[in-house]
Amino acid sequence: MKIEAVDFFYLSMPEVRDIGDGSQDALLVRVSGGGLVGWGECEAAPLVSIAAWNCPMSHSACKPVSASVLGQEVNSPNDIRRINALVRAHSLDLLQADHTLSGVDVALWDLLGKRLEAPVYRLLSHDRATPKSAYASVLFGDTPHQTFEKAHTSRQAGYRAVKFGWGPFGRGSVNDDTEQLHAAREGLGEDGILLVDAGTVWGDDVEQARLRLPALQACRALWLEEPFTSGALESYRKLAAEAQPIGLRLAGGEGCHNFDQAKNMIDYAGLGFVQIDTGRIGGITSAYQVADYARAKGVQFVNHTFTTHLALSASLQPFAGSMADSLCEYPAEPSSLARDLDGGALQPDSNGDIRIPESPGLGVEPNLAAIRKYLVDAEIRVGNRVIYRSPEVPE
Amino acid sequence: MKIEAVDFFYLSMPEVRDIGDGSQDALLVRVSGGGLVGWGECEAAPLVSIAAWNCPMSHSACKPVSASVLGQEVNSPNDIRRINALVRAHSLDLLQADHTLSGVDVALWDLLGKRLEAPVYRLLSHDRATPKSAYASVLFGDTPHQTFEKAHTSRQAGYRAVKFGWGPFGRGSVNDDTEQLHAAREGLGEDGILLVDAGTVWGDDVEQARLRLPALQACRALWLEEPFTSGALESYRKLAAEAQPIGLRLAGGEGCHNFDQAKNMIDYAGLGFVQIDTGRIGGITSAYQVADYARAKGVQFVNHTFTTHLALSASLQPFAGSMADSLCEYPAEPSSLARDLDGGALQPDSNGDIRIPESPGLGVEPNLAAIRKYLVDAEIRVGNRVIYRSPEVPE
Repeated sequence: MKIEAVDFFYLSMPEVRDIGDGSQDALLVRVSGGGLVGWGECEAAPLVSIAAWNCPMSHSACKPVSASVLGQEVNSPNDIRRINALVRAHSLDLLQADHTLSGVDVALWDLLGKRLEAPVYRLLSHDRATPKSAYASVLFGDTPHQTFEKAHTSRQAGYRAVKFGWGPFGRGSVNDDTEQLHAAREGLGEDGILLVDAGTVWGDDVEQARLRLPALQACRALWLEEPFTSGALESYRKLAAEAQPIGLRLAGGEGCHNFDQAKNMIDYAGLGFVQIDTGRIGGITSAYQVADYARAKGVQFVNHTFTTHLALSASLQPFAGSMADSLCEYPAEPSSLARDLDGGALQPDSNGDIRIPESPGLGVEPNLAAIRKYLVDAEIRVGNRVIYRSPEVPE
Repeated sequence: MKIEAVDFFYLSMPEVRDIGDGSQDALLVRVSGGGLVGWGECEAAPLVSIAAWNCPMSHSACKPVSASVLGQEVNSPNDIRRINALVRAHSLDLLQADHTLSGVDVALWDLLGKRLEAPVYRLLSHDRATPKSAYASVLFGDTPHQTFEKAHTSRQAGYRAVKFGWGPFGRGSVNDDTEQLHAAREGLGEDGILLVDAGTVWGDDVEQARLRLPALQACRALWLEEPFTSGALESYRKLAAEAQPIGLRLAGGEGCHNFDQAKNMIDYAGLGFVQIDTGRIGGITSAYQVADYARAKGVQFVNHTFTTHLALSASLQPFAGSMADSLCEYPAEPSSLARDLDGGALQPDSNGDIRIPESPGLGVEPNLAAIRKYLVDAEIRVGNRVIYRSPEVPE
C-alpha cells in the first residue's frame, strides 16, 4: 500500500504546569494508506516536530521529513526500515527530524500490523509477548512525607517496583536527598523495588552523584537513572565503576535520538539498563535495533514512557519477546489528557504485569472525542503556503 | 545589560535546489540589549529552529529556548555560559533547542564584544588571533572533468588546500570515486592539499569506506571526512586504525550538537581533526569548550562552515589563538544570498590566510538590504497567539 497522508494532532492540557510531567501534551501522528490508518506518537515539543514534518528544504541533506515518507510503498517490515533510513539520510542536518520520524515510524508499524492482521511484535519476529513487570513511574514529592505517601499508595495499588524522579531530588543538599530516599524506602516496605531517577540534574559532575551513593546503597535502590545528561559517557563510566561494587546499577539512554547514541551508551557508559523512548529514538525500528544490541551486550533494555498507552504499547513491542528484559516503565500519574485519550488500555494484572495487546498493530486506538477535546488549533505559514493547519477530527 | 529582545530573520534563495549547498538559506538571530544589537546565525532548517524559540512549554524540562534567554543579564562571558547551561537544562527534551541556542549564543557574544569594545576572541581569553590557512570547500563535480576544473580554478584563485565533498562521491562504484579523486589531485597539482568529504554516505559501513582507502592513499588525501554519521564511534575507530598507517587521518564532528558528543568523538573515534559548526554545537560557548578539550587531547580543531562570513567569523573565534589549529574551512561557492549578506567580509590574503576581524564583537555586520531582499514571510500561530511573525527590517 502507498502512504497517502500523514496528519499531526497536537493535543494539550488547558494549562501546562512547570513540573516534570511529560503527559501534559501530546503529538499524535495518523498515517493513512490502503483504506487503513495507523497511529503513533512523538515525544515532546509538538509544534517543533510538526514544523520538521513540512518545512521548506534547506539543502539536499536538510529536507523535511515528509519528503522521505509521502507516497512511499509499505508492504513489509523492510519497507519501514527503508523509509527510516531515507529520513535519516535526507534530513541529516534537521535536528528535530528524529523526533518527528519517531511518531511516523510508530504509526507505520501500527498500519502495517493492521494490514497484515498481526500485532507489531510478531512483525518484529518475536514469537510471543512475555508479560512485563510494571514499575510505577512517579515524581518525588515536594517533601519526604509526600514521597512516603506516594510510595505507600503505589504499593497498595499493586506495584512491586516504584521509580521516583525529578521534583526536588538532586537540587538541594545531600541530606535532603537522603531523607527523600529513606522516605521512599519506608513507604515501599522491605521488599518493594526502589528505582531512582536523577533527571540529568548533575550534568556531568561525578562528584555530585558520588555524594549520594551511600544513601542509595542504604536504601537499596536497584538503579540510579540519568545522573548525567545522555552522552556524558566518561562521567557515567566513572560513576558505574563506583556503583557496581555497592550493588547499584546505572540506567540511562532516554535522550538518545538514534541507534548510534544508544550503542555508545551501551559500549562506553557502564550501564546496567538502557532506557529507550520509542517516541524519540526514531520509532519502533530504531528501538528494536537497540534492544537487539543491548541483549547481545548483556545490558537490560527498558522502555522509557511518560505519556499515553499508545506510546506504551509502541515502546513495549521492540523487546516483547525477550524474557531477560522483564521490566516495564508504567506512567502511573497520567494527565487527564493521557487517560481520556487511551482509556487506560494497558492495565497491570493481579501480578502487577503488563501484557501487550494481541490485536493487530499496536492494539491501542486513540479516542477521537479526546482528540477533539484537547486539540490545539495551530497554523504555520511560509509565504503563501500554509504548511500546517490542525486537521479536522472525524466524528 | 538586560536581553530585551531576540529576533529571527529567515532568509532564503528564491529557489532552493536539491544539492549539498548549505548557503541556500539562513537563519539570522538579532539580540538587542543596552542600546546595542548582536548578530548570530543558526545552521539549517530555519523554520524549525524558529519554532523551538517560542513554542509552548511541554513540561519543566521541555521549555522553549526563549524561556531561558529573555530578560537575562549579560555583562560578562560567564553570563553567556550561564544562559547556555540554562537553555540546556530547561530545554533538555526539545531536540532542536541546541540549534536555536547556537545562533542566540553567537549573537550574545557579538553583543557582549560590542559592549566591552573587544573582539570576541579576546573575551575568550585568546591573546591574539593567528591567521588561519583557508581551504576552499567545494562540491565534487558531476564528472571527474568538472572536479579537475574546480581543483584547477581553486588553485589559480590562491587556495593551497581544497576540500571536495558530496555530489556523486561514494554513491557509485569504487572506480567512479577513484577517478574523481585522481581528477582532484591532477587539478590541484603535486603540492596542493587534498581533503575529501564523504558526507556520511556510508552510514556506519566500514567496508564501503575501506574500499576507497587505496585511492585516497594514491592521491595523498590529508583527511577523509565523515565517512560515517556523527556518533558511529566504533566504525570511525575501526577505519582510523587502518587509515593511520597509510598516512590518512579521519575528520568529523560537524553533526555534534553539544559538547559531550564532540568529546566522545575525540575520545573514541580516532579522529585526527574535529570539525565543529558553531551554528549547531550550541554556539561559541560550546565550540570553545571543544577546542580546549581537543587541544589537550592532541586532536586538531577545525571550523565547519558552509554559509556566511558571519558564521565564519563566529566559527573562528573559539580557536583563534591556537597556533596548532591552523586550518580554516572557507565556503568558496557561496550563494548570492550569502554574498549579499556578508559582502565577502573575510577574504583570504595573498598567502591564502584568513584573519579574524579586530573590530568589537564578530566584526561582520549583516547587510540590511540583503535581509530585506531574501527575507521569508512566515507566521506561526498557536490558538490566538502569534508566536512568530517575520520581523520588520529597519531601513
